[in-house]
Amino acid sequence: MLDALAHVGRDPATGGYNRDAWSDADLELRDWFAGEAARRGLDLTEDRNGNLWAWWGDPAREPGVVTGSHLDSVRQGGAYDGPLGVVSAFAALDLLRERGFRPSRPVGVVCFTDEEGARFGVPCVGSRLLTGVLTPERALGLTDDRGDTLADVLTRAGRDPRALGPDPETLATVGAFVELHVEQGKALVTLDRPVGVARSIWPHGRWRFDLRGRADHAGTTRLEDRDDPMLLLARLVLAARDSAARRDVLATVGKVLVTPNNANAVPGHVAAWLDARGPAEESVRALVRELQEHLTGGAPGESGGHDRDHGVRGPGPGGSPERGPGPVVEVREESWTPLVEFDAGLRERVARAAGEVPVLPTGAGHDAGILAAAGVPAAMLFVRNPTGVSHSPEEHAEEADCRAGVVALADVLEELCR
Amino acid sequence: MLDALAHVGRDPATGGYNRDAWSDADLELRDWFAGEAARRGLDLTEDRNGNLWAWWGDPAREPGVVTGSHLDSVRQGGAYDGPLGVVSAFAALDLLRERGFRPSRPVGVVCFTDEEGARFGVPCVGSRLLTGVLTPERALGLTDDRGDTLADVLTRAGRDPRALGPDPETLATVGAFVELHVEQGKALVTLDRPVGVARSIWPHGRWRFDLRGRADHAGTTRLEDRDDPMLLLARLVLAARDSAARRDVLATVGKVLVTPNNANAVPGHVAAWLDARGPAEESVRALVRELQEHLTGGAPGESGGHDRDHGVRGPGPGGSPERGPGPVVEVREESWTPLVEFDAGLRERVARAAGEVPVLPTGAGHDAGILAAAGVPAAMLFVRNPTGVSHSPEEHAEEADCRAGVVALADVLEELCR
Repeated sequence: MLDALAHVGRDPATGGYNRDAWSDADLELRDWFAGEAARRGLDLTEDRNGNLWAWWGDPAREPGVVTGSHLDSVRQGGAYDGPLGVVSAFAALDLLRERGFRPSRPVGVVCFTDEEGARFGVPCVGSRLLTGVLTPERALGLTDDRGDTLADVLTRAGRDPRALGPDPETLATVGAFVELHVEQGKALVTLDRPVGVARSIWPHGRWRFDLRGRADHAGTTRLEDRDDPMLLLARLVLAARDSAARRDVLATVGKVLVTPNNANAVPGHVAAWLDARGPAEESVRALVRELQEHLTGGAPGESGGHDRDHGVRGPGPGGSPERGPGPVVEVREESWTPLVEFDAGLRERVARAAGEVPVLPTGAGHDAGILAAAGVPAAMLFVRNPTGVSHSPEEHAEEADCRAGVVALADVLEELCR
Repeated sequence: MLDALAHVGRDPATGGYNRDAWSDADLELRDWFAGEAARRGLDLTEDRNGNLWAWWGDPAREPGVVTGSHLDSVRQGGAYDGPLGVVSAFAALDLLRERGFRPSRPVGVVCFTDEEGARFGVPCVGSRLLTGVLTPERALGLTDDRGDTLADVLTRAGRDPRALGPDPETLATVGAFVELHVEQGKALVTLDRPVGVARSIWPHGRWRFDLRGRADHAGTTRLEDRDDPMLLLARLVLAARDSAARRDVLATVGKVLVTPNNANAVPGHVAAWLDARGPAEESVRALVRELQEHLTGGAPGESGGHDRDHGVRGPGPGGSPERGPGPVVEVREESWTPLVEFDAGLRERVARAAGEVPVLPTGAGHDAGILAAAGVPAAMLFVRNPTGVSHSPEEHAEEADCRAGVVALADVLEELCR
């Protein structure tokens, strides 16, 4: 089935996938999902937030066991992150039917909308709206790089933006959720096992740093007259790395937008996104605080030296009168997910049913984590990734390991629907 | 006349102008130029490289005196850089005719194509092709941010890409060139004068730094396993500033493209453009060499510390086997213009005719500099810029100063065509 999707949203130059939520590629993938559901005689519904559900049995009578993942991708992403979980869900259903298994409860396959947040900057939009941790007001106002809001994009895709919001009825149909995913790391390689199960998801968040200066001619503005936010970006990137290493967390500046982005102009504005996560929530929060203080000169002695070295002016009366509106450095939290411990009882059942597979922590956020935080019993299966590389065209899983994943998922569904 | 152009390519959100070469906005401006030429009974020609010429008199009989500038803009640029010179050229012609002046030689108004290089990265494409310092092979292969080549874009605009190339016949029609331009600095403010004349254009160039690493998941890849080119960008930006201050040159990293540019992915590739210029050619060259060595670890002791601090790996066998093709740091010179001294005799005549105006050096490149380097007697008039700000929506010149510029230009044309 993965082969059937291999062409959708693929950049021929790099082999990477661009499957932004509600893009043409995403709509094609949603059509594919509907077709696979129809071929199996499953009942397809799209909930008010755009998540797709394909049911074997009627979840209105009793809550079911749901599996699945998402079909959107990061930009220049790989073929497995997301689709492997959806494809494996359908394949596990096929395997259960081949075995002649009759589930005691409804079984559902889900495709969550906009898990990666590649387009609007906020990940897990579909599951966050469903559970109510993201408000429809905030979601509809999110803008993509072209300036289109989610409301614009939904309208263009023929959806009603006013329908968005918490959906307790749909959530109540999910008695348990098991998401299969390619591992984004090499723990299973080290353990020499094809499949594992998740213990927890690290607390993680995303922050937008708006760094403001004054656009100027690169050929005529003296260094000492400049107010160049690119220098602030450089300090942010290096400080994030240093602070992360010291605090034993991960910090990444992976997205940067420069305005006007001319080779011969001092930029007027740089927006940079910081992704930070780690085992301890307080360490992640402390890192973000430290970076903010570092850039605004809140840490005496340290930033004083930088100001002298790089001509970075602090905010307030010393700032330039010609600078545009807004503070020099503005930090906004775009998303935050506290530590998620998956349901211990379900985890043990899943690990046993999947064949006594090892239990792993993970730094990556998933829809399963959003559901778990909302009180839904949830679990995750990981399939071995030989290089550990993910969010990249090089992301890979061996076919034998993918098949082992399907068998493990089918065994888990049998156990939960016995 | 400037008011008639005020809406073309204007970003309503910022007030900045986006007038990429051969964009819809640029084509509209070219139409406007043709209309102004027709209204004055001037003979319009488009040369093989897309530059527009409007002639009063026949330059086939004897070389003429040409004035004008360009109509394209940097992204989010101002209303004056370029258009002021073209509008003032037409206005000066009108003034000469009002005065009843009959020129002894042909007088031309020129609009050079793609002066800013906002779209394809190379400035002064029209005048460089005309004079032969840019080859048509290189020009046609230039790509914009969408991956379209100049050849694609010309074909779409109904031009024949095969026509591009050196054009000695057109160049021979230019007996002298005088370009009027808004000042990109505050020298005239300091001198309290509305108009000045250029002495020289600093040597200047543009370099593209390709910084390569390995795209990875931001939430699962350990800091020590990363190969993150964003750290190289940060080092480049800070080192460029430090080196520029030490060497008394200007250096700017104003354009950055990150791939894949996802908030939750370690980037695989960062492209950054360095603009560098200064009074001494050797200082500019030395800065670029120093940056290259700094990033590739060529400077012992210094880069060794950075490697340890930021996990930046050097090229060669120590590099990551999973990294994509190409070296870790690659530097390509996209353009280079040596010091241009404007013709001293012409400069003195222009300065005298314009009313004993002051003589200034400039760090900005212009088509006048390209023509001067090709042996054409060329001069530039500058009009006062109250803030010195350019390449920005805040770029401005007072109406009285613009009128003084037109009068000075008309006086200069009279002097050269007496």
